[in-house]
Amino acid sequence: MSASEAQNWAIAHHDALLDVLRRFVAIPSVSTDPSFTDGIAQGAVFLADLLRECGFEHVAIEPTGGHPVVRADWLHAEGKPTILVYGHYDVQPPDPVDAWQSPPFQATLRDNKLYGRGVSDDKGPMIAAVGALAAYLGSTGSLPVNIKLLFEGEEEVSSAHLDQFVADRVDELAADFVLSADGAMWRVDLPTVTTACRGLCALEIKVSGAAKDLHSGRHGGAVANPLQGLARLLAALHASDGSVAVPGFYDGIEEPDQETRASIAALPFDEGAYLQSVGACEGVGEAGWSLLERNWLRPTLEINGISGGYAGPGKKTVIPAEASAKISCRLVPGQDPFDILNKVEHAVLNACPRGLSVSVEREKGVARPFAISRQHPALQLAMQVLEEIYGRPAQLVRMGATIPIGEIFAHRLGIGTVFFSFSTADEDYHAPNEFFRVERMRDGIRAWIRLLELVGTLPTAAFREGFTSPISR
Amino acid sequence: MSASEAQNWAIAHHDALLDVLRRFVAIPSVSTDPSFTDGIAQGAVFLADLLRECGFEHVAIEPTGGHPVVRADWLHAEGKPTILVYGHYDVQPPDPVDAWQSPPFQATLRDNKLYGRGVSDDKGPMIAAVGALAAYLGSTGSLPVNIKLLFEGEEEVSSAHLDQFVADRVDELAADFVLSADGAMWRVDLPTVTTACRGLCALEIKVSGAAKDLHSGRHGGAVANPLQGLARLLAALHASDGSVAVPGFYDGIEEPDQETRASIAALPFDEGAYLQSVGACEGVGEAGWSLLERNWLRPTLEINGISGGYAGPGKKTVIPAEASAKISCRLVPGQDPFDILNKVEHAVLNACPRGLSVSVEREKGVARPFAISRQHPALQLAMQVLEEIYGRPAQLVRMGATIPIGEIFAHRLGIGTVFFSFSTADEDYHAPNEFFRVERMRDGIRAWIRLLELVGTLPTAAFREGFTSPISR
Repeated sequence: MSASEAQNWAIAHHDALLDVLRRFVAIPSVSTDPSFTDGIAQGAVFLADLLRECGFEHVAIEPTGGHPVVRADWLHAEGKPTILVYGHYDVQPPDPVDAWQSPPFQATLRDNKLYGRGVSDDKGPMIAAVGALAAYLGSTGSLPVNIKLLFEGEEEVSSAHLDQFVADRVDELAADFVLSADGAMWRVDLPTVTTACRGLCALEIKVSGAAKDLHSGRHGGAVANPLQGLARLLAALHASDGSVAVPGFYDGIEEPDQETRASIAALPFDEGAYLQSVGACEGVGEAGWSLLERNWLRPTLEINGISGGYAGPGKKTVIPAEASAKISCRLVPGQDPFDILNKVEHAVLNACPRGLSVSVEREKGVARPFAISRQHPALQLAMQVLEEIYGRPAQLVRMGATIPIGEIFAHRLGIGTVFFSFSTADEDYHAPNEFFRVERMRDGIRAWIRLLELVGTLPTAAFREGFTSPISR
Repeated sequence: MSASEAQNWAIAHHDALLDVLRRFVAIPSVSTDPSFTDGIAQGAVFLADLLRECGFEHVAIEPTGGHPVVRADWLHAEGKPTILVYGHYDVQPPDPVDAWQSPPFQATLRDNKLYGRGVSDDKGPMIAAVGALAAYLGSTGSLPVNIKLLFEGEEEVSSAHLDQFVADRVDELAADFVLSADGAMWRVDLPTVTTACRGLCALEIKVSGAAKDLHSGRHGGAVANPLQGLARLLAALHASDGSVAVPGFYDGIEEPDQETRASIAALPFDEGAYLQSVGACEGVGEAGWSLLERNWLRPTLEINGISGGYAGPGKKTVIPAEASAKISCRLVPGQDPFDILNKVEHAVLNACPRGLSVSVEREKGVARPFAISRQHPALQLAMQVLEEIYGRPAQLVRMGATIPIGEIFAHRLGIGTVFFSFSTADEDYHAPNEFFRVERMRDGIRAWIRLLELVGTLPTAAFREGFTSPISR
């Protein structure tokens, strides 16, 4: 029984794997900020070295138009299914650094949680996946399935170059389905598998007034204030019922069926407890939809940042020359990110206040919304494994966040993606004091070992059902 | 003719007075930044020594709750009017220091302009005033009027302690009117006297949502976004016609009479050239008023700074826990700063969007609007002197900016203030490369000598008309 040998190996090597994770977290592989370019390069090298050490073949750091992809494979399970394993080694910026209780790039254990930037998103879950594979290879010298690994460095910048990377390697990456180490579980108290995630597009609005900062007394009343113009522009992006007021924003959305809405309503979800967990006094959003529906089934337009003028202590009576805001939209099936960017840009430029000029800069990376059939066999096996480990039936859920890969692999390779991450959504990724639960690391390794075992028992063809051809855009 | 002796003395001592100004500028008497406390102390000592040298009596450096006031007097012109002469020896910080062409605290002559921090605001105009007094005392041993000098060290921090200082010395400071060496002239090409300036109050708005920054995918649609709430709050502070939409904001404003509006319309003012000078494409503001009227006669509410969420390079898909904006209002006669703060705060708190909380922090320093009657005899004499010097009629103008002293002296001492500074608004005070025109130094000394002569010919009672009792707040 190679699976039980692998499980024993993993238990024996738990501390060593945790140490690998600590060293991985120490590398500041921030993809969003060019000043961290060295960190990205170090992250890729660390990963490649690790995969070689585990026994993978064809380990390579491959360039893209942006940050590199790390690939490797092990293809000696003849006649068995092939899994494309996905993860990402890039992380979010650590800002605001002052809000961290321990240094963001120094993994620190407190209360059985490991704190550090990227430990939950996605370094911890990736090391769990790699750990499961290492457990097979380390204990038995082989795997129950064929594995192709693809770890990217641009997930936090919307997987900007992954689509082209995959398109250029359709044959090399061919597999029966994708198993993703990314895609945090919804809650720590409920085993779940995610069947859909939202798409994403983003842009920055700049509002310009006079050529220089002006004294608000000497000039106030004479010329337009870019901060006031920006506030007006931003306020007009939502209607008073909480819906997005950009013309055509909701056009073409695939309305969820009654079964979907009913299953969401049936989930054990305590809205009050959720609001308390994030410290919000009430749920707020588009009228006519429940909180979970708004987060999972409906698109949003959020302002992510705003700046202009004086923000230091005390006052400075200035009319700044410029103000800006960053905006992003989460999209649902039926919405195309480029179409939405066009519509938002059009709405913003059309509403330019008098005496000011408005410009829009689009973020290059976009992601399309994704959904997988509830009937996909790998999804069903993942549910079974979770029930075995947690002793209760796993639930199918959706995700408000964005993982572009599902749609990319469906479109380019014609295969489904199962998210099988063991981080959970409460772990403050994208925020200060990100953490990963140590017992989840253990659960994850155990689950991946078991899932690979089960996949190895099914015929290859089973995983292609419903995915006979690439999904069209 | 003691005035002509004084004029001759001033001409003979021009270089010596310029040298005094250079030494004064070399003292970094920055009031806004505690690291310059020594500079403030040196500035006060320098001034006190200078006044003693000129022949003033009762020279004293007097403590306040903040930086000290320098006082002195000469009261031997029996039966003649008494003038309280005002100026300030504190200066703005030199930042950004790199943008200076010569060191900010080393007065440097280029093209007949003296460059240095504070040279225009207010050290140059003060030395012109002191030079005129020194010219009388140095040449004739006496002055044609009684003089009380009051030079403060906190003008650049809203004269934070001056009101209390004056209130505590109502009898000692009693005079017939105030002649201010502060209050730059509107333009270098037009002799003007300023009859009004706007008041000022300021506050900061904080909008809070969840207890921590949230991932805009994981939580977007579920809870309110403080940036959106802030944009909505700020946008609601103005109506679409450019007027301030805070209820009651315009209540009680003393509407300008037709004569005032006509005289503003008659001023030689090239709106296109003004807009070009600030790099604005068009004038924008409250409907129904000309550009100068909006800047001089009408109150404003300006956003001076805004912050929240991610403002670095690239994007960060965050719903921040908090967002904030700094706001200030310029006020006109009939508006009380505390009443306006109440109204703005009330409007903001009342409009708090669902799911968010709003708090308001008021800036401590406020300044009331000020206006002096066009008929004030000292104003009329000032106009006469300017016409003699510049060979064309002087114009009455207003000021969009704020100088708190006029209202303080009117309220505490029941007397009018005439601004008689020879710096001009284009001299980049509050910015790098502040300068003062050397010929303006000459003009200023000449004008002050002549004005003191003329004031000495009028009966004391003339200056008290319309100011028989303190102005109420």
